[in-house]
Amino acid sequence: MAAIASLQIKTPTQSTPLPKTFKTHFRLQSISYKHNPTRNLTRKPTRISCGLIEPDGGRVVNLVVPEFERDLKKREAMDLPKIKVSRIDLEWIHVLSEGWASPLTGFMRESEFLQTLHFNSLRLGDGSVVNMSVPIVLDIDDAQKERISGSGSTSVALIDGSDNPVAILNNIEIYKHNKEERIARTWGTTAPGLPYAEEAITGAGDWLIGGDLEVIQPIKYHDGLDHYRLSPSELREEFEKRNADAVFAFQLRNPVHNGHALLMTDTRRRLLEMGYKNPVLLLHPLGGFTKADDVPLSWRMKQHQKVLEDGVLDPENTVVSIFPSPMHYAGPTEVQWHAKARINAGANFYIVGRDPAGMGHPVEKRDLYNADHGKKVLSMAPGLERLNILPFKVAAYDKTQQKMEFFDPSRAQDFLFISGTKMRTLAKNRENPPDGFMCPGGWEVLVEYYDSLAANEAGTVPEPIPA
Amino acid sequence: MAAIASLQIKTPTQSTPLPKTFKTHFRLQSISYKHNPTRNLTRKPTRISCGLIEPDGGRVVNLVVPEFERDLKKREAMDLPKIKVSRIDLEWIHVLSEGWASPLTGFMRESEFLQTLHFNSLRLGDGSVVNMSVPIVLDIDDAQKERISGSGSTSVALIDGSDNPVAILNNIEIYKHNKEERIARTWGTTAPGLPYAEEAITGAGDWLIGGDLEVIQPIKYHDGLDHYRLSPSELREEFEKRNADAVFAFQLRNPVHNGHALLMTDTRRRLLEMGYKNPVLLLHPLGGFTKADDVPLSWRMKQHQKVLEDGVLDPENTVVSIFPSPMHYAGPTEVQWHAKARINAGANFYIVGRDPAGMGHPVEKRDLYNADHGKKVLSMAPGLERLNILPFKVAAYDKTQQKMEFFDPSRAQDFLFISGTKMRTLAKNRENPPDGFMCPGGWEVLVEYYDSLAANEAGTVPEPIPA
Repeated sequence: MAAIASLQIKTPTQSTPLPKTFKTHFRLQSISYKHNPTRNLTRKPTRISCGLIEPDGGRVVNLVVPEFERDLKKREAMDLPKIKVSRIDLEWIHVLSEGWASPLTGFMRESEFLQTLHFNSLRLGDGSVVNMSVPIVLDIDDAQKERISGSGSTSVALIDGSDNPVAILNNIEIYKHNKEERIARTWGTTAPGLPYAEEAITGAGDWLIGGDLEVIQPIKYHDGLDHYRLSPSELREEFEKRNADAVFAFQLRNPVHNGHALLMTDTRRRLLEMGYKNPVLLLHPLGGFTKADDVPLSWRMKQHQKVLEDGVLDPENTVVSIFPSPMHYAGPTEVQWHAKARINAGANFYIVGRDPAGMGHPVEKRDLYNADHGKKVLSMAPGLERLNILPFKVAAYDKTQQKMEFFDPSRAQDFLFISGTKMRTLAKNRENPPDGFMCPGGWEVLVEYYDSLAANEAGTVPEPIPA
Repeated sequence: MAAIASLQIKTPTQSTPLPKTFKTHFRLQSISYKHNPTRNLTRKPTRISCGLIEPDGGRVVNLVVPEFERDLKKREAMDLPKIKVSRIDLEWIHVLSEGWASPLTGFMRESEFLQTLHFNSLRLGDGSVVNMSVPIVLDIDDAQKERISGSGSTSVALIDGSDNPVAILNNIEIYKHNKEERIARTWGTTAPGLPYAEEAITGAGDWLIGGDLEVIQPIKYHDGLDHYRLSPSELREEFEKRNADAVFAFQLRNPVHNGHALLMTDTRRRLLEMGYKNPVLLLHPLGGFTKADDVPLSWRMKQHQKVLEDGVLDPENTVVSIFPSPMHYAGPTEVQWHAKARINAGANFYIVGRDPAGMGHPVEKRDLYNADHGKKVLSMAPGLERLNILPFKVAAYDKTQQKMEFFDPSRAQDFLFISGTKMRTLAKNRENPPDGFMCPGGWEVLVEYYDSLAANEAGTVPEPIPA
């Protein structure tokens, strides 16, 4: 009775006709500031492509104040009640500022928070629905709430660890932060040990503060990777420059092995067969908060770079960029966010694997989510109807061909599955995986990373243990 | 940015034009049995009104097999693998059989279950969305699953406690029952002590079985109250017979006091002012599973009857009927189900109070839900856009007028709030509430109920307690 959006790729000739030429034009970015209607005059024009998928709400939100206003905004911020933000808060400010969460214009107010928790989507003024599955919220504690309420101010300044003003939150709304309910509805469990919850929710304040953000300057990390951090608008420009007529996104937070590469190459082949002339891959590693045993971003980026240098992926039709969001590990709920954000960056195809954004149950000896639910929920999610979902084909090491191949159950005995855990164990022990599992340059980076970990561990003085 | 459906009553002249006359017509009830296309020929015609709000999916589902087929179906059931169902399962079979959950045609399959948990709604084949916020599912254990799978049958018989076949479930689908995830996403907590979860989920099987129901005969309880159990189709007929041009539903599971009566009378007055000619009240007590300290259905029905006899509510424009659903106590999630089911029964106005379907947190000393969230979530819920939400005005005992009145904060000292707990304590102690709180006949029923409880308790032998 209830229909599932097709998991099949739509051929462009049938339902997504290819534009004959790529017309691009400029139009004034008309941010509708409900509470501050004069502000939209100050926005710079943004290039909008007719060829790429339309962003949620019709335009990519840009919350960074124009350069000529920044000094003024900094001074304005000095006079406002201040909230010191955490690293994860900053990552969300980054996400919001560039429009990954379009049409959100700031941290969620209660009506957006409730719609996210209950419906994984937001209804817009025109009645249309966009997907929004994870709460993007800012918590404050009782004392901060008192201070802000006492000031009578309708705006607050968000400051970083060095007391520099990062953003102004306008037309604020303060509401109760029911942490148990937020965790239960986002993760489908309240078991202790969920990495994001432990890091950012359990110890957080009992109130949330929503409002419209003005971000004083673009968020930078100065870690040598900022050039990889293209905004959705910059990615759209890049895809246009390359004349992409299909963009397929691959979200990842692990090193790329040849099975991934096979999948991405095969996807491009299938899109070409369908009639697309120039499908471009967005290889899009997640750059925000990850759990302690994931490979850190800097090492992953080195590894991805090697994979391109070694020719495993073709740089001609691959864009490597960093997705600035923190990771929830919230499975079927989070995969919707991962997909939605990529629509805003211009992707109309999204590759989804087994158990996306999943992890082991923090307490019980099982996976937290059913491995198929991510793919199923994604295919049924409100607001994602326009996105073509590409289910991941399982690749494994084919011993007969000595390379990664799509798994063929009719000759299962020929295949070797190398799990993430197995891969990490091999790299830690400086053992080599079978030839053809990963390009040698990429593997070296991984070994180097685990060596550096071991060196650090060797250098630490062991804690005294009572006899 | 995200719009909230208006909490205001729409005037009929603006957006819900009144039909000039009430045309009714007959049409063949075209149940689309996806898996069994021949079945739709056997359905009896159902009266559909042009005047009342359209049911979800366009028609009220009827899953009871026609009389001439019942013997055949009973014999068919005898040869199928059997599942013994619980009292709550039977209540759900009742709910499904009469189309309260239209367009559902049976216990949920996985795609419906996932959409309910994640989106509180179902997308239909034509792309439209209906609300569906609580899972309506049937659990089985490992042994049952083995037995059913081993039989190779695609149908199972559902049998009651006396081994009588109640229904056949066709085109079955068996899938994993992740109880923790179901509870977390439905209640926003996994704390032990949720009445429905304790009764029907925690000890349930690890699998769910979905499919299309054929209910062998109408579900009856033989408790002297069956004449109150009107189906959605029967209610629609009743509203048409009365020439109702607006139907406002009041869901309750407590005795009616004069504050409720005031609200219902006032609602009718407001609807008349707006131009409706004959608004009819559906006083709709919930009849399924409730927690131990709620007043049992039979006593509530006696009390409601007294309220009508005493003239507190006008029988001319009031329909008292029983809503057969079991109670989840799942607050903002459940209130959507309560509202959606009433659309199917023809109600286009729904009265929502403070903390609907809420309860105290089972472990912490606080309410489980924010008292305003029910109303807010209801107003934003997908699939309920057509329903007019009427927020409950708070009534309290006005000491100056010696009657229940809408609370006036400008003279707060004149008002006395009599909570449910206070009301129960008074009745238990055979004390009288202030004059005008409840009609005397209704109050007597309540006192009688608590007397009967005390008599039962006096009759039980106390458990020996270790010294």
